[in-house]
Order: sequence, then C-alpha cells, then structure tokens
Amino acid sequence: MSHSDAVSIYEVSLRDGLQNESVFVDTEHKGHLFEMLQAAGLRRIELTSFVNPKWIPALADAEALCAAVQPRAGVMCSGLIPNARGFERARASGLGEIALALSVSEMHNQKNINRSVSDTLVEYAELVPQIIEAGFRVRAYVSTVWGCPYEGPLEVSRAVAIGEKLLAMGCYQLSLGDTIGVATPVQTRTVLRAFRAGVGLEKVAMHMHDTRGTALANVLVGLEEGVRDFDASLGGLGGCPYAPGAAGNLCTEDLVYMLNGMGMSTGVELPALVAAAKQASSYVGRALPGKVHQAGAWPR
Amino acid sequence: MSHSDAVSIYEVSLRDGLQNESVFVDTEHKGHLFEMLQAAGLRRIELTSFVNPKWIPALADAEALCAAVQPRAGVMCSGLIPNARGFERARASGLGEIALALSVSEMHNQKNINRSVSDTLVEYAELVPQIIEAGFRVRAYVSTVWGCPYEGPLEVSRAVAIGEKLLAMGCYQLSLGDTIGVATPVQTRTVLRAFRAGVGLEKVAMHMHDTRGTALANVLVGLEEGVRDFDASLGGLGGCPYAPGAAGNLCTEDLVYMLNGMGMSTGVELPALVAAAKQASSYVGRALPGKVHQAGAWPR
Repeated sequence: MSHSDAVSIYEVSLRDGLQNESVFVDTEHKGHLFEMLQAAGLRRIELTSFVNPKWIPALADAEALCAAVQPRAGVMCSGLIPNARGFERARASGLGEIALALSVSEMHNQKNINRSVSDTLVEYAELVPQIIEAGFRVRAYVSTVWGCPYEGPLEVSRAVAIGEKLLAMGCYQLSLGDTIGVATPVQTRTVLRAFRAGVGLEKVAMHMHDTRGTALANVLVGLEEGVRDFDASLGGLGGCPYAPGAAGNLCTEDLVYMLNGMGMSTGVELPALVAAAKQASSYVGRALPGKVHQAGAWPR
Repeated sequence: MSHSDAVSIYEVSLRDGLQNESVFVDTEHKGHLFEMLQAAGLRRIELTSFVNPKWIPALADAEALCAAVQPRAGVMCSGLIPNARGFERARASGLGEIALALSVSEMHNQKNINRSVSDTLVEYAELVPQIIEAGFRVRAYVSTVWGCPYEGPLEVSRAVAIGEKLLAMGCYQLSLGDTIGVATPVQTRTVLRAFRAGVGLEKVAMHMHDTRGTALANVLVGLEEGVRDFDASLGGLGGCPYAPGAAGNLCTEDLVYMLNGMGMSTGVELPALVAAAKQASSYVGRALPGKVHQAGAWPR
C-alpha cells in the first residue's frame, strides 16, 4: 500500500444495526455493548437515532442511552437525526457529533425521510451551520450511491453533486452508502474515482452492506484507492429490510480481521471485539452473520 | 482488467460441500443438484470422492452417483481419490478427471490422508502417470497453502516446491487451498506472486474458504494478479470442520454475482444458480451461508 496504514472505523451497530432488529434491546444492554466496544478500542461510535419512536421503536430510548453511557477520553459518540426536530432532541444529549442522511435516489429519500432530495438539501443548508454553531461535528450519510431498491442503478454524478453540497455546508465527512448491498469492485472503483475527481477522498468514508457478500472486496478496492475510513457493525448486526434473514452491514470484526492480516492498524483489539459480538448475538437472540466471531481469529 | 475477462468455475459442492454436512443427501437428490448445476451453465463439476465410506459416509454412494448422472456435452466431471485404491474404484466411473489432494502441512497431510508429505509425493509420482495413461486428466489440490490448523502459518516456498513436483508429474492444474479460511489480501498477493515466479499462474486455480469472510476479497486479488480459475460451492455448502455453524467454501452464486458486476464472463446463469442453491438448502435441511440466494441478484 502506498498510503497510510492507519484505518479509522466508525461503529454503527447500536444505531444502524439495532434499528433493523425486531427485538428491543434494553438500554442497559445497549450500554453494556457500548462499553465493550470502547474497551475493544473503537473510538467513533454512533449511539442512536433521534427519530420518531413510532417509526423505529428499537431506538426509542435515545435520550436514556445517551445519558447512560460514559465515553472514555478520545471516544466520539454520534447520533443520527432525520430533521430539525431530531436535533432539538439531540442538542442536550452530550454527544459530540451529529449524523444526517440523504439519499441519491429521489424515491428512497422520500420513503426514508419523507421529503424530496432538493427540499432536504435546503433544510440541511440551514440546519448544518446551526448544529456546528452548537458545538457538534456533522457527518453526512449519502445513501443508495451504488443503487436504489426502487430506482435501480444511479448515475454517480448525482451522488458527487450531493456530496459537494453537503461538504460546502460544513459536514466534515461523507459516508457513501451501499444501502442495499449491491456493490461490486469495478463499480466501486468508478464511484471512488468520481468522488476523488469531484471532492477528493480525504473526507470520504465507505458504508458497505454485505447483503451479497461483496462488502470486504469493496473495502479492498477502497483501500487501494486511498480510503481509510469505514463504517462497520459489530457481528454484522442489521438485517436487510428487503430480505429477512439476509446479511446486513459490513461486520466490524471481519473488517478488523482482514485489516490486521494486511498489516493495517485500527487500534481495535480483535479478541475483545469477538467477545462483544457474541454478547450482541445473545442480546438480540439470534446468530449474527459476521464470521470471525463464529470461526475465531487466526493465528490464535 | 488487463487480462482475459473469462473466468472458469470449478464446482465443488457435491464433494467438498457435502462431505462436511452431517446429513446424507440421497443419490437421487445429488443427481438432481448436478442436473441443476449443469443446466445453470457450470462445465466443471466435482461429483464425489472415492474415499473409504467409513471416513466420509456422506459420499458413500460414489459409484452410484457417477452411474446416475448424465453429463451434457462439454461438461467435465471429476472425482477425488485419496490413494491408488481410490483410483481402482474411480477407474470405471465414467468420469473425465481425477483430483488428488496433498497438504503443505505435514500434520494436516497426516490427519487428512494418513501419510507423510514425502511418502505421498512418491506415491503420486507413480500414480499420476497411470491415471493419465488410463485417459483421465489429473488435478491437484494443494491444501493449507495459507495456513494450517495445527502448524499455523507456513512458508509459501514449501507450497511452491510441492506444486512444481505435482505439475512435473503431469497434473494439468494446481488448486491452491485456503483450507481453513484464514487468507487476507496482502498474503494472497504474496502467495500468488511466489507461484507466478515458481511455476507461472496459467495452471493455478484458487480454492478459497469463506470462514472469516475474506474469500471474495482474496478472489479479487487473484483476478488482479491474473488468476482466472476458481473453485466454488453452491450456496456456500461445506461447513468448517473446526467451527460448527461457521461458513465454509466460497459460495458459487456470490462469486458469479461479483464477477457479473465486474463484467467478467462465467457462462453461468445466476437465476438458475440461485434456484439450485435454494434446492440444496432444502436437501441438507438448513440455511446455507451463501448470500445472493437469500438476498436475490440485482438489478433484478
């Protein structure tokens, strides 16, 4: 590798993972998972979403969870907000970072946050500076970059144009989402090169789903292209809403296993992460799709 | 890609897949899976192993299965043999190809085929010419190239030295095995470059296990290095004997999905393969680890 060997992992299990689980995990158990995650060395953890509990009951305890956790020095906790009302809830949460989401796909954005892409951009252009003014960093998810369940494949230029606007508002990072897990390596290279040409890759993270088994192969392309920032979810928590039982988010311990084997540094201790994944599996009451926590790391 | 875009898949589910399953799949059902595999476009199918049924009861019907299937024109069927006695059984099978296995690891070879690596090489040096003389092609599995469950990581020079000997005997292809699914991309590049320097990559196939989720990332490295020949197993059939419930062989439909997305050609129809994987899952009576047959191909 010609780039830095340090990779930053943004842990999404407590939010993106659990929001797709059918069981409600107790606030105390979520707090315990958070503790295991930070003890394993994760330094960026998305805790919850300040969305209407009517839509995502699994995250109805957002305020309680933020109050319950005790982040160590150097640990940045974030919370997702769907709109200005979400930020009003998040403001007193003690978090350091706010995450926003926007889809490249018009129809997915409509179904996900109930308004058009252009209306969302107008709203965020007003909101992001307010959030920053209030002392938070802002991270932006750009969803359905690799394709949309309703609109199919999308022109990457649309994603780049949205990314430019979000960075211009003051977001510190774009998390490019393969929301439905369809990405393959040649496409990923095309996407990343378009972003490099448009906005540079320094502020780009990848948020891959392993729905079709290609997440780590796409991460490898990201590494080759110079991306050093990846979202991942403990145990692979987070089903695919369009395919019950199918795999969801890229699994954190599988990512760390591969990166370790490649000589990249993450600051994360794999055995502690494996223990956390087993605990998460027990809390949600099902086997999780991640592999390393089942097979064990190696060499042992 | 600077190389050919045609990839050849060697299908191992009926042998390497089923030998690790706890249920015995009826000969008739195996024959049906074979039919679905060749109808989907697979042209190289390993049918069974002529090993003592005492060791692998799941494949006790080797002769019956060979008699039951009707390979189409252009379909090459192969059978694994552990030794000369196995070849005596395979000789009248109607197969076109014989597969042999040899481990880089002394201890794994001892446990797998009950003799030392050097004794096995002496035996194969006598046996391979006889098999070729009898009208078969011979393919050689080189196992534990990426590491051994007993001996740990192994020097790649040992694998290359064994590969050279097997090719010198007349084997048409080496299938390099990540037997316990520990490979990561940097290591894979090192392995492949050592084989390129030692024997060239024209006669090299990769046999990856997805035990730790890295199989497709390693395939991607193989593609970049010029490998165009991969073993795969329908549905990801084939557990890991060291981790009950964990994933086993690289899944054929996940491989085809990724290759399709990269513009590579395999001659395999993905929807037919997905149907076959669902059928296989029903025959073995459990969910299989492959992902595309659960999530569906895309765009649909």
